[in-house]
Amino acid sequence: MKLLILNGPNLNLLGKREPAIYGSDSFEDYFKTLQKKHTGIELFYFQSNIEGELIDKLHEVGFLYDGVVLNAAAYTHTSVGIADAVKAIETPVIEVHISNVHAREEFRHTSFIAPNVKGIIAGFGLKSYELAIQSFL
Amino acid sequence: MKLLILNGPNLNLLGKREPAIYGSDSFEDYFKTLQKKHTGIELFYFQSNIEGELIDKLHEVGFLYDGVVLNAAAYTHTSVGIADAVKAIETPVIEVHISNVHAREEFRHTSFIAPNVKGIIAGFGLKSYELAIQSFL
Amino acid sequence: MKLLILNGPNLNLLGKREPAIYGSDSFEDYFKTLQKKHTGIELFYFQSNIEGELIDKLHEVGFLYDGVVLNAAAYTHTSVGIADAVKAIETPVIEVHISNVHAREEFRHTSFIAPNVKGIIAGFGLKSYELAIQSFL
Amino acid sequence: MKLLILNGPNLNLLGKREPAIYGSDSFEDYFKTLQKKHTGIELFYFQSNIEGELIDKLHEVGFLYDGVVLNAAAYTHTSVGIADAVKAIETPVIEVHISNVHAREEFRHTSFIAPNVKGIIAGFGLKSYELAIQSFL
Amino acid sequence: MKLLILNGPNLNLLGKREPAIYGSDSFEDYFKTLQKKHTGIELFYFQSNIEGELIDKLHEVGFLYDGVVLNAAAYTHTSVGIADAVKAIETPVIEVHISNVHAREEFRHTSFIAPNVKGIIAGFGLKSYELAIQSFL
Amino acid sequence: MKLLILNGPNLNLLGKREPAIYGSDSFEDYFKTLQKKHTGIELFYFQSNIEGELIDKLHEVGFLYDGVVLNAAAYTHTSVGIADAVKAIETPVIEVHISNVHAREEFRHTSFIAPNVKGIIAGFGLKSYELAIQSFL
Amino acid sequence: MKLLILNGPNLNLLGKREPAIYGSDSFEDYFKTLQKKHTGIELFYFQSNIEGELIDKLHEVGFLYDGVVLNAAAYTHTSVGIADAVKAIETPVIEVHISNVHAREEFRHTSFIAPNVKGIIAGFGLKSYELAIQSFL
Amino acid sequence: MKLLILNGPNLNLLGKREPAIYGSDSFEDYFKTLQKKHTGIELFYFQSNIEGELIDKLHEVGFLYDGVVLNAAAYTHTSVGIADAVKAIETPVIEVHISNVHAREEFRHTSFIAPNVKGIIAGFGLKSYELAIQSFL
Amino acid sequence: MKLLILNGPNLNLLGKREPAIYGSDSFEDYFKTLQKKHTGIELFYFQSNIEGELIDKLHEVGFLYDGVVLNAAAYTHTSVGIADAVKAIETPVIEVHISNVHAREEFRHTSFIAPNVKGIIAGFGLKSYELAIQSFL
Amino acid sequence: MKLLILNGPNLNLLGKREPAIYGSDSFEDYFKTLQKKHTGIELFYFQSNIEGELIDKLHEVGFLYDGVVLNAAAYTHTSVGIADAVKAIETPVIEVHISNVHAREEFRHTSFIAPNVKGIIAGFGLKSYELAIQSFL
Amino acid sequence: MKLLILNGPNLNLLGKREPAIYGSDSFEDYFKTLQKKHTGIELFYFQSNIEGELIDKLHEVGFLYDGVVLNAAAYTHTSVGIADAVKAIETPVIEVHISNVHAREEFRHTSFIAPNVKGIIAGFGLKSYELAIQSFL
Amino acid sequence: MKLLILNGPNLNLLGKREPAIYGSDSFEDYFKTLQKKHTGIELFYFQSNIEGELIDKLHEVGFLYDGVVLNAAAYTHTSVGIADAVKAIETPVIEVHISNVHAREEFRHTSFIAPNVKGIIAGFGLKSYELAIQSFL
Repeated sequence: MKLLILNGPNLNLLGKREPAIYGSDSFEDYFKTLQKKHTGIELFYFQSNIEGELIDKLHEVGFLYDGVVLNAAAYTHTSVGIADAVKAIETPVIEVHISNVHAREEFRHTSFIAPNVKGIIAGFGLKSYELAIQSFL
Repeated sequence: MKLLILNGPNLNLLGKREPAIYGSDSFEDYFKTLQKKHTGIELFYFQSNIEGELIDKLHEVGFLYDGVVLNAAAYTHTSVGIADAVKAIETPVIEVHISNVHAREEFRHTSFIAPNVKGIIAGFGLKSYELAIQSFL
Repeated sequence: MKLLILNGPNLNLLGKREPAIYGSDSFEDYFKTLQKKHTGIELFYFQSNIEGELIDKLHEVGFLYDGVVLNAAAYTHTSVGIADAVKAIETPVIEVHISNVHAREEFRHTSFIAPNVKGIIAGFGLKSYELAIQSFL
Repeated sequence: MKLLILNGPNLNLLGKREPAIYGSDSFEDYFKTLQKKHTGIELFYFQSNIEGELIDKLHEVGFLYDGVVLNAAAYTHTSVGIADAVKAIETPVIEVHISNVHAREEFRHTSFIAPNVKGIIAGFGLKSYELAIQSFL
Repeated sequence: MKLLILNGPNLNLLGKREPAIYGSDSFEDYFKTLQKKHTGIELFYFQSNIEGELIDKLHEVGFLYDGVVLNAAAYTHTSVGIADAVKAIETPVIEVHISNVHAREEFRHTSFIAPNVKGIIAGFGLKSYELAIQSFL
Repeated sequence: MKLLILNGPNLNLLGKREPAIYGSDSFEDYFKTLQKKHTGIELFYFQSNIEGELIDKLHEVGFLYDGVVLNAAAYTHTSVGIADAVKAIETPVIEVHISNVHAREEFRHTSFIAPNVKGIIAGFGLKSYELAIQSFL
Repeated sequence: MKLLILNGPNLNLLGKREPAIYGSDSFEDYFKTLQKKHTGIELFYFQSNIEGELIDKLHEVGFLYDGVVLNAAAYTHTSVGIADAVKAIETPVIEVHISNVHAREEFRHTSFIAPNVKGIIAGFGLKSYELAIQSFL
Repeated sequence: MKLLILNGPNLNLLGKREPAIYGSDSFEDYFKTLQKKHTGIELFYFQSNIEGELIDKLHEVGFLYDGVVLNAAAYTHTSVGIADAVKAIETPVIEVHISNVHAREEFRHTSFIAPNVKGIIAGFGLKSYELAIQSFL
Repeated sequence: MKLLILNGPNLNLLGKREPAIYGSDSFEDYFKTLQKKHTGIELFYFQSNIEGELIDKLHEVGFLYDGVVLNAAAYTHTSVGIADAVKAIETPVIEVHISNVHAREEFRHTSFIAPNVKGIIAGFGLKSYELAIQSFL
Repeated sequence: MKLLILNGPNLNLLGKREPAIYGSDSFEDYFKTLQKKHTGIELFYFQSNIEGELIDKLHEVGFLYDGVVLNAAAYTHTSVGIADAVKAIETPVIEVHISNVHAREEFRHTSFIAPNVKGIIAGFGLKSYELAIQSFL
Repeated sequence: MKLLILNGPNLNLLGKREPAIYGSDSFEDYFKTLQKKHTGIELFYFQSNIEGELIDKLHEVGFLYDGVVLNAAAYTHTSVGIADAVKAIETPVIEVHISNVHAREEFRHTSFIAPNVKGIIAGFGLKSYELAIQSFL
Repeated sequence: MKLLILNGPNLNLLGKREPAIYGSDSFEDYFKTLQKKHTGIELFYFQSNIEGELIDKLHEVGFLYDGVVLNAAAYTHTSVGIADAVKAIETPVIEVHISNVHAREEFRHTSFIAPNVKGIIAGFGLKSYELAIQSFL
C-alpha cells in the first residue's frame, strides 16, 4: 500500500514558527515518526506553497497510489483547481486539518475540496494525519 | 476510560431503512462490535430523536465521562441548544458524520456544534465512530 | 387503507385560542367529522409539541400506513430532523397548512419538509386536511 | 357555478413532449375528462404563452366567474403583473402546480402569485386540478 | 398575581458549570431569594431542555397566569414554535437574557420570540429576572 | 409637441376595480380631462397588459414624439426589455407611479427602468401624470 | 399657504462648485426666481449640513406649514432620524432630487425617507423643486 | 449617585405628536415624576436631535457620573459614532427603547450601540426608563 | 438542414438606433448575407418583442428543425418561460449575444436560459451568429 | 502650503481615555509636535463630533487650502454626506486611521469616503498623520 | 497570424482521465489536428497548472501575438491575477470552455476573466477551440 | 536595517504596458531611485506572478529582515495563503497599493491580507512605496 501525505502552503514553517508554542520539531521529524509506526505501508511526503505544484503531484500519484492524505491549508478555501484535481484522479483523498477550522475565521468554514474527498478529519493536531492513515487500513 | 456514543434523530432507523442498501444490521449491532474491539474502555450508547433529551444526556455525562462521540445528525445544522451544551460541559466531544455532509445539500454544510468540539470526523461510513474512539486513546 | 393525521406545535390550541374568531371546536371535534365522512378508511390522529415525538411517530407508521397528512406548523420552517424522517420512511406524506403561509411572515415561506413530500396543500382552512385525504383516494 | 382553468407557458406541450414519459394525451383531453366528472358546474379552459394574455383573461372573468384554477407555470416565479391581476379581481384564485416545485430548482421555490391566492395545491400531477375544483364545492 | 419564570436549555447547569466563575448557587437557590423579595405575588418556576415542553407549559399557564418571564436561551434564536406559542396565549410575556446577547456571536443577535413579547430585558445578570418581575408591578 | 401616455398592466382596471374606493371613472375619462387642460399639445394614450406591445409602442413613437409618460406598473420591477427600449430610443421618458411605491412591498422598491429615464414622479395619485406633462413644458 | 424648501448637506455649494458646469448661480438666487413665480404662496428656505438641524426645522414647521419640499441629499440614504421626523409631523412632505439618483451609485438607490413622504420627484434638475411646489397647488 | 437620561432624535416631540394617542404630557413632565420617585439620587436630563451633541454629552458625563440611561432612538440603528463614545467612556450605559423595536421595521432590529452597553430594556413604554434606573440601584 | 435564428426584444431596432455607430443596415440585411454564405442549409429568421411569441416559435420549430440560434436579449436575464421552452423541445439551441454581456451591468451576468442550451457564444458582434451556425456544421 | 488636519468623532478623548494605555497626551499636544517638525508649511487643526460641522469645514477650506488630512473616525463608515463633500471640493484629501481598521469589526472594513480621496494611510498609530503630511511634500 | 492556445489546470489529464468516456487522445493529439486544419496560421500551445505561469505566458505573447484562446479552467472562477493580465496586454483574448459551465455547479457560473475578453465560447466540447480560432479569421 | 519590497502579479509589466500613460520606466528603474534616496538601509526587491513563490519569499526573509513592503496586487483579494504567511512570520509587513483600490471594482475593496499587516498605504502612485519605507524609519 502506497500513501502520500500532501501538505499545502505555510505548513513548511512548522518547527520554525513560534517554537515555544508549536515545538521545534519540523513536519519532516513528525513524518519519520509516522513512518516508524506504519512499517507495513509505503508512506511518502510532499509539500509546496505553489497551488499548481500540488495539482501536479495529485496528477502524478492519482492513478498509481492507494490514498492521499491532503492538508491543502489556505488553498482549501480558495482553490477550485485542487478540488478539480481531487475529483479527476482515481486515488481516494482524505482531507485533514491540524486545527478545528470551524472555530476560526468565517472564511475557513468553507472548503472547495470537501465535496470531492472520501472523508474529512479536523482538529486533532498532528494526530489528524495518523487517524487519516488508519482510515485506509 | 468512559466514552459515550450519542446519536441524534433518525439514526435509530439503521437496519430498517432500505435494508438492501444499508444492510439489515441496526446501530445496536454495530455498537456490540465496537465494544468487542475496545475491551479496555467502558463504552456506552444513547440515541434520541428529541433535541432536549440529547442535551439532558450531555449534561448527565459531561462532568463524569472522558469523552463523547456525537452524531447529532439533523440537529447539527439547526440546534444552538446542543452547541451550547457541548460548550458548557467539561468532557471533550468529537463530532462524527457517517456520510460526507459537504457532498450533500447546502444546509448540511454548516454546523452550529463544530466550533465547540475538539475534532470532526466525517465521511467514513460507520468507521467514523471507530476513528473517533481511536482519537481518545 | 390506513391514514395518519399528524399535527405539530400549537395546533392543540384550536378551540381554546380566540374562540370568538376560530370557533370553540377543537381539532379533535373536527377529526370526528372527518372520520364520519370517510368511513371506508382507517383514520388516526396524533399531535405533539415536541419535534422528536413527531419524528418517532413518523418512524412508527412510516413502514405500515398508506399515507400521512402532516401539518408540522412551526417545525415546517426549522426542522431538518422531520424532513429527514419524511425522506427515510416509505409511506407517502402530504404537507398541509391551514392558512396560506405565503401571505404571512418571510420566514414562513421556506419549508425544509416540502422537497421530500408527495404534495402540498395550503390555505383552505381545515378543509386542507380533507383535500389531502381525497388525494389518497 | 362557473370555473376557469387558466394555464401558462409551455403547458400546451403536454402530449407532445416526451410522450413515452408524460403520455400522449394533451391537456385538452384531460380537460374533457374533468368536464365529464363535474357535470354540475360550468368548466372553461384557456392557455397562453403570453403573460399579458393571461392578465387579460383574468380581467375578463375576474368579476363574473366563481373561481379560477391557475397554473401560471414559469410566470409563477417572475410575473408581478399576474400577481397584481389576481389581487385586483374579485373572483378567488387557486394556484396549482403539476409537480412539487419545492423539489426542483431554487428559483422555483418562490412565487409572486402565492400571497394573493386563496389556496395552493402542488405535486399531485394532473390530479392537482381536480383537487382545486373540489375545493370550490 | 401569578407569575411564571420559564427557563430554556442549559440554564439548569447554573451552579454546576464553572463554579469558580458563575458561583455554586443553582437557579433554584436564586429563585428562593426572588420569592422572598416578592411575597405579595405567587411566583412559579419551570425549566426544560425540550422545546416542546416549554411550549406545553406556555399553553398551560397562558390563559390563567398574569405574566411569564421567559429566558428561552438557545431556543430564542431557532424556535418558531415557542414564538408562535407566545403569540397564541393571552398572558403577556417578558423576554429576558442574563448576558448581553448583542455582545456575543452573530447568530445570537436575532430572536424569533422578540416580536411577540411585551418587553425585553437583557444583560443585567440574574438581576434581569428581578427587573422583569418589577415591570409587572 | 407630441406626448404619449403609456400605461402598463392592470391599469385598464381603473373604474372597474373597487369603484367605492377608486371611483367609477376609467383612465380614459381622466385622459380626456388631461387633453382639455393641455390644448396646446398633442396628447396620445396607449395601454397594454403585454410587455412586448409596450416595447413595440416605445419603438414606434421613440424617434418621432417629444416625450413619453410611462407608467410600466408591474413591469417596472421585472422588465429588462422595456428598460432596454427606453434606453435605445431618442424620445425622453418620464417614469410615473400613481402610488408611493416605496411605501409598498419590498420588490416594488427596485426599478429596472429608472436608470434610463429623464425623471421620476411617484405618489401623487393621478396628478402624477399631470406633473409629468408639465415637466415637458 | 406656507411652504418650506428644506435642503440637506452640500447643496450650499451650488454656484461655487465647478461653476463652468453647474453655473455660478447659488440656490439662493434660484430661490428668488421661485418666489417671483409663485407670488400667491409664502415660500421659505432653509439649508443645513447638520442632520439634527434638519430634524429641528421639520419639528418647527411640521405642525404649522402646509407643505415641505425636502431634498435631504446624502442623508436620504443614511438618516433614520429624518425619516422618523417626516413620519411624526403633520405637514405633508415631498422628496425631491436634482439628479436621477437611480442612475448613480448603488447606495443612492435606497431611501429611508421615501416610505414616509407623500410623493417623490427626481431627475428634473432644479425644476424638480418647481414641480414639487405645483403638486401642492 | 448621579444618573443622566440621554434622549436622541424626535423624542422631544412627546406631548406634541398625536396627543390623543400619546397623551399631552412632554418627556420633561415625565422626567419630573421620575425625579420625585427617586429622591435619593441626582437625576439629569438632556435631549438633542444632533448626533454629535449626544456624543459631546456622553464625553462630558462619561468620566464623572455613575450611569447613563440612553435612548438613542433613530441613531441606535445608524450611529457608529455614539457606539464608539459609549465604548470609550467609563460610565456604564443602559440602552432603553419605549416601544418593542423588534416588532417594528427590519432596520430597527439592529443596533450599533447594543454590543457596548451594560444592559438593554425595551418595550415597556415610558416605564423602560424607570426599570433602567432601578437596575443601577 | 433547417436552422432558425430567433431574436428577442429590441433587436429589431438595428439599423434605426444610432446609425452613426451601429450602421444603417438592419438585421434583415445581415440575415441575407448569412443566407448567401450558407447555401447548403435552410436558414429562417423570426423576431418578436413578446416573450410568449418567442416561446410559441420555439414550440413550433422545436420538434422539426435541426437547430436554433437564440438571442433572447433582455429576456435572457428574466424569462423562466423561454428557459423552460428550450428545455422542453428536442431541437438543440445555441445562445448568442452580440456584445460581451459580462462586461456590462451586473444583472446581465446571469442567464436563466444558459443551463439548458448546448453552447454559448458571446461578444463577437454580428459574427456571433455566424459562429453559431458553424457549430452546427 | 496650507494643510488642515480634520478629526471626527471621539478623537477629542485622546489623553483622557485609558491614559495608562494611550498616554496622557491629547491630540493638541501631538499637533504641536507636528507643527514643530514641519515649519515650512502652515498646519491647521479642527475637530468636531458633529458630522455637519465636518462638512462645513471641508467646504470652508476646500477651495483655498492645498490639502486635507481627514480622520473621519466613525463617520468613515456611515457618512455619505462627508463623502459627497470630499468629492465636491477641489482640495485633495488623504484618509488616515490611527489603527488598522481591517483588523477590527466587520463594519469598519467599508468606507464611504475612500473612493473619493487621493490616498489612504492606516495602522501606523499617530504616525499615520505624519506620513500623510509627507505625501503632500 | 500567430495564435496561442493557453490551457489552465487539469486540462493536461485529457486522454488519461476516464478514457472510456473522454477518449484516450490527449489535448496534444487534438492540437495537431487543429494545426493541420489551419495551415495558414501559426498555432502554439501551452499548458500549466500554475496560475503564475499562465500569467507569465500571457505577458510573453501579449504584445507580440494576434490572439490568445484561453481556457483558464478552474482559475476562471478564482483568479483576479489572470483577469488583470488579460486586461493589461494588447493581444485580444477569447475565453473558451469545453463544457457548458452554466449547467454545472453554482461557483462555475461566475468568471473574473469574462469582463476583459473579446468574446466567450462555451459548451461545444473540443470544437469550442476551433470556433475560437475561426473568430480570429 | 534590511527591507524587502515584494511585488505580486502583473507589476512586472510596468514600463511595458501603455507607456504613453504609465511611462517607459520599469519598476526596476524606480527601485534604483529608491535605493539612492535611502542609502542608510539595505533595500531588496523581488517580484513574482506565482502566489507560492511570494509565500516562499516571505518565509525566507520573515525571520531575518526588519520589514516587508508588500504589494500583492491581484492576490490581495484572493490569497488566504499569503495572508497566512504574513501572519506566521515575525517581520512586520506594510501593505501598499499604487492606485486607490477603493475607487475601482467591488472585488478590489476586500483584502485577505489587511487584517494581518502593520499598516496600509494606498493611492499615492509609486510614492506609496516610499511612504512605506519612511514608516519603518
